[in-house]
Amino acid sequence: MKPSKPKVLFFDVNESLLDLKELKITVGKALNGREGLAPLWFSMLLHHSLVSTASNQFADFSQIAVATLQMVATQNNIVLHKEKAKEVIQHFQKLSPHPEVEEALALLKSAGYQLVALTNSSEKAMNAQLRNAGISSFFDAQLSVETLGTYKPHKKVYQWAAEKQGVTLNECMLIAAHGWDVAGALWAGARAAFIARPQQELYPLAPLPEIHEKNLLDIAKKLIAMG
Amino acid sequence: MKPSKPKVLFFDVNESLLDLKELKITVGKALNGREGLAPLWFSMLLHHSLVSTASNQFADFSQIAVATLQMVATQNNIVLHKEKAKEVIQHFQKLSPHPEVEEALALLKSAGYQLVALTNSSEKAMNAQLRNAGISSFFDAQLSVETLGTYKPHKKVYQWAAEKQGVTLNECMLIAAHGWDVAGALWAGARAAFIARPQQELYPLAPLPEIHEKNLLDIAKKLIAMG
Repeated sequence: MKPSKPKVLFFDVNESLLDLKELKITVGKALNGREGLAPLWFSMLLHHSLVSTASNQFADFSQIAVATLQMVATQNNIVLHKEKAKEVIQHFQKLSPHPEVEEALALLKSAGYQLVALTNSSEKAMNAQLRNAGISSFFDAQLSVETLGTYKPHKKVYQWAAEKQGVTLNECMLIAAHGWDVAGALWAGARAAFIARPQQELYPLAPLPEIHEKNLLDIAKKLIAMG
Repeated sequence: MKPSKPKVLFFDVNESLLDLKELKITVGKALNGREGLAPLWFSMLLHHSLVSTASNQFADFSQIAVATLQMVATQNNIVLHKEKAKEVIQHFQKLSPHPEVEEALALLKSAGYQLVALTNSSEKAMNAQLRNAGISSFFDAQLSVETLGTYKPHKKVYQWAAEKQGVTLNECMLIAAHGWDVAGALWAGARAAFIARPQQELYPLAPLPEIHEKNLLDIAKKLIAMG
């Protein structure tokens, strides 16, 4: 028996749909050419977003991005002024989609799927990101965790997103290139697909997602083939 | 007017009391000599401990340490078998205290302070760590987040720790070398002191702690001088 089609597809945005490569190059330049520090900065950004959540605090994702970029700089004896750090983080809004994303979204849309963006970016940043990447029109809804004041992968985020779309969590599938996002969605009771982009890994302590492919087009084909 | 003495001092253990240098060297060796990846691994460990917490899941800190070490290896095309990763993480239990720690704890103890360890390490690992470092006898209590099933800096951890000692949060002070731990304690309503160890930074989006010194001895002197 073929698995049944999910009613709603939630898409993570940063790294999953949009390519962070250019941002990481810009971050590397700001850190005296030490591009190898970009993964550390991104990990610290994700960690500190949950530090806020664990304390019932909330700060804009780009504010946390600026703060953690400054921390990485100071830890490595690199001078980086706050204004420069803010300028670097602005590049979040100018990311290109990964090459196969537009075709994959178009196929899913034609097949009748309901597509929803679900991101840690702020409402305003998310809108700009999807518009600048030229993929805004594919989405039935664009949800930012900013509205809830809680970062992914807190289970409240997935519950809230499902409620917003008027469905239950087991009728939803999250599609993401981050192991921690896939883990959170599965633990919350949703279905999940993992986009195995370069340097991205599933979290070994979490359940496995039902779909695991190298790009979004292959995931779209599997979804369209569902019963 | 001098500030009043806190009734209970909570001590973070890893990095704050114990030196992670040897562990980071061992981690670097296991990652094909790429010691520069050790901070990324530690950040991913902290991030994933909160990923578990955000999903009401719990795994032992050393299990998360092994899982994230394997992730860092795979992301960097380094072969690292699980058994080898486990062996590396065992080094957490063999850390030496920073040079001034024993003298500082002895001074605080003589001054009548109640000293309590409060760590993300498991109960068993924490007991072994403090015993192997030769500082176990200074502590009136040794608290592991494992008992609660929630990682620092979730505010529930500090609330629980204060309750265990029969005091209110504003009668407690957390002493730690991590900006995120200091942030969590302050947001929960406790007082805090930051040990500014090398490569450690306060979190720019959190309130400032009342004490900020380069080592524990200088913090101890400030605490002893309180009214």
